[in-house]
Amino acid sequence: MYVLFWLQGDRVIPLYIPQCGECKFCLNPNTNLCQKIRVTQGQGLMPDKTSRFTCKGQMVYHYMGTSTFSEYTVVADISLAKIDSAAPLDKVCLLGCGISTGYGAVVNTAKVHPGSTCAVFGLGGVGLAAIMGCKVAGATRIIGVDINKDKFATAKEFGATEFVNPKDYEKPIQEVLVGLTDGGVDYSFECIGNVMTMRAALEACHKGWGTSVIIGVAPSGHEIATRPFQLVTGRTWKGTAFGGNTMFVNL
Amino acid sequence: MYVLFWLQGDRVIPLYIPQCGECKFCLNPNTNLCQKIRVTQGQGLMPDKTSRFTCKGQMVYHYMGTSTFSEYTVVADISLAKIDSAAPLDKVCLLGCGISTGYGAVVNTAKVHPGSTCAVFGLGGVGLAAIMGCKVAGATRIIGVDINKDKFATAKEFGATEFVNPKDYEKPIQEVLVGLTDGGVDYSFECIGNVMTMRAALEACHKGWGTSVIIGVAPSGHEIATRPFQLVTGRTWKGTAFGGNTMFVNL
Ligand SMILES: NC(=O)c1ccc[n+]([C@@H]2O[C@H](COP(=O)([O-])OP(=O)(O)OC[C@H]3O[C@@H](n4cnc5c(N)ncnc54)[C@H](O)[C@@H]3O)[C@@H](O)[C@H]2O)c1
Ligand SMILES: NC(=O)c1ccc[n+]([C@@H]2O[C@H](COP(=O)([O-])OP(=O)(O)OC[C@H]3O[C@@H](n4cnc5c(N)ncnc54)[C@H](O)[C@@H]3O)[C@@H](O)[C@H]2O)c1
Ligand SMILES: [Zn+2]
Ligand SMILES: [Zn+2]
Repeated sequence: MYVLFWLQGDRVIPLYIPQCGECKFCLNPNTNLCQKIRVTQGQGLMPDKTSRFTCKGQMVYHYMGTSTFSEYTVVADISLAKIDSAAPLDKVCLLGCGISTGYGAVVNTAKVHPGSTCAVFGLGGVGLAAIMGCKVAGATRIIGVDINKDKFATAKEFGATEFVNPKDYEKPIQEVLVGLTDGGVDYSFECIGNVMTMRAALEACHKGWGTSVIIGVAPSGHEIATRPFQLVTGRTWKGTAFGGNTMFVNL
Repeated sequence: MYVLFWLQGDRVIPLYIPQCGECKFCLNPNTNLCQKIRVTQGQGLMPDKTSRFTCKGQMVYHYMGTSTFSEYTVVADISLAKIDSAAPLDKVCLLGCGISTGYGAVVNTAKVHPGSTCAVFGLGGVGLAAIMGCKVAGATRIIGVDINKDKFATAKEFGATEFVNPKDYEKPIQEVLVGLTDGGVDYSFECIGNVMTMRAALEACHKGWGTSVIIGVAPSGHEIATRPFQLVTGRTWKGTAFGGNTMFVNL
């Protein structure tokens, strides 16, 4: 049973993936994609189909169930997770998206094993958290991939062991990584949101066992593609939303 | 340690995926894709780069390392698995490809769990073996999908519980299956070799946890595609060669 245990004055993190504890998704341990308020959330509305925002008398839509670009917000009861009142708000707020997503993609979705070789595409907040996850999971090689070389210093602090800038090579980045790793990486993570790097991340995986996880969100209408032989020869293509995390205590 | 334990006169099954027992693929329990003779096999040659076939004085290439369309053949030592001499040859020969592939895709690659809902696309030899695997794995609903309705009677004997003929519907087959299964199947298997049905098989999977396995081999140059959101919302896309099986005794 899940319990919504916050009270007025509690400190909370708003969740763009809520947790009702009752729907068939909440009852399945293999997913965090609660569907209870999905339709209205997708419409930018509260579960009662209204908006609580106005601007100069005009109704303004909610955003992703949290509307956290606003200073004050109204969210559904199931969209809040209580946090320790002593947690520093300027840091703990990062658990609301980037950190949980990147870290969870590694430990929940890919389940990276000790000694493995990983490539993380894109070294923004999500990619840095994925690197942190790879380090905690015991990966031996953690290859950061970014076209902005200024990202490499911070990625090193988070645990990356090597860096590849696709701009430094003539050939496709997947070929570069396959060459650097004797056949490909064990796990790759796409933290950019570009369908071409999603393909590259899959094709950089080792034949026979490599797993690629899509985290980035591509522009609407864009599609991923690859030769089916990439999968027939043993690669796995997955994705993750909010790193597969749930945020409520499961009693 | 693997042992090649056949002798002259033994009955054997030729293997298009050999097992050397030594390469990094043979040493990894997560794959069956031995690479020891892959290059020469791909070239239609024996490991010593020769062919053992001629026709009217002209060299003829080997085929997939086994050349089993010929009455007599020469294969690499690692491409033979000894079988029980009492096994009926007309039946046991099916273990050389179709049966092992379809059955193994279910039990080795997807690891179908009891009580699950499965869809098998294409009811040829591979698809029927996949259905057999789903039944043994304890699936509750096994939906056979084929555009040739004459396949349904045999599929029922193998364990299929329902049938869908895409020709009977105006809408895409993935939408039909999602409707029939309250959101999608837990596992799907593509046993046709068509990139459009590969996409349909993935998109017929349940959001949050559905897994689709590509078994069919598409024509060269054809690519699979889908919206990345299909994976970000929790579906897994995999593939399998020879059903993930190895054929030698591992001592
Ligand atoms: N799946 C989820 O639940 C979820 C959650 C949060 C964020 N996201 C998505 O994750 C992605 C990353 O988010 P972020 O906040 O870290 O973004 P960000 O913009 O801070 O970082 C992206 C990084 O990718 C690099 N990059 C861009 N194009 C590249 C290329 N072709 N090759 C290599 N590197 C390239 C950029 O230089 C940048 O460092 C976004 O698409 C975001 O929408 C998804
Ligand atoms: N991955 C591997 O290791 C491996 C091993 C063996 C075979 N294969 C491949 O598996 C596939 C199936 O092999 P098979 O011997 O069972 O083939 P088959 O031709 O006997 O059966 C294919 C079935 O698919 C049906 N079909 C065709 N188009 C369809 C569509 N659009 N929608 C629904 N059904 C459709 C046909 O009516 C037929 O019943 C082939 O592509 C083969 O190359 C792969
Ligand atoms: Zn729920
Ligand atoms: Zn081998």
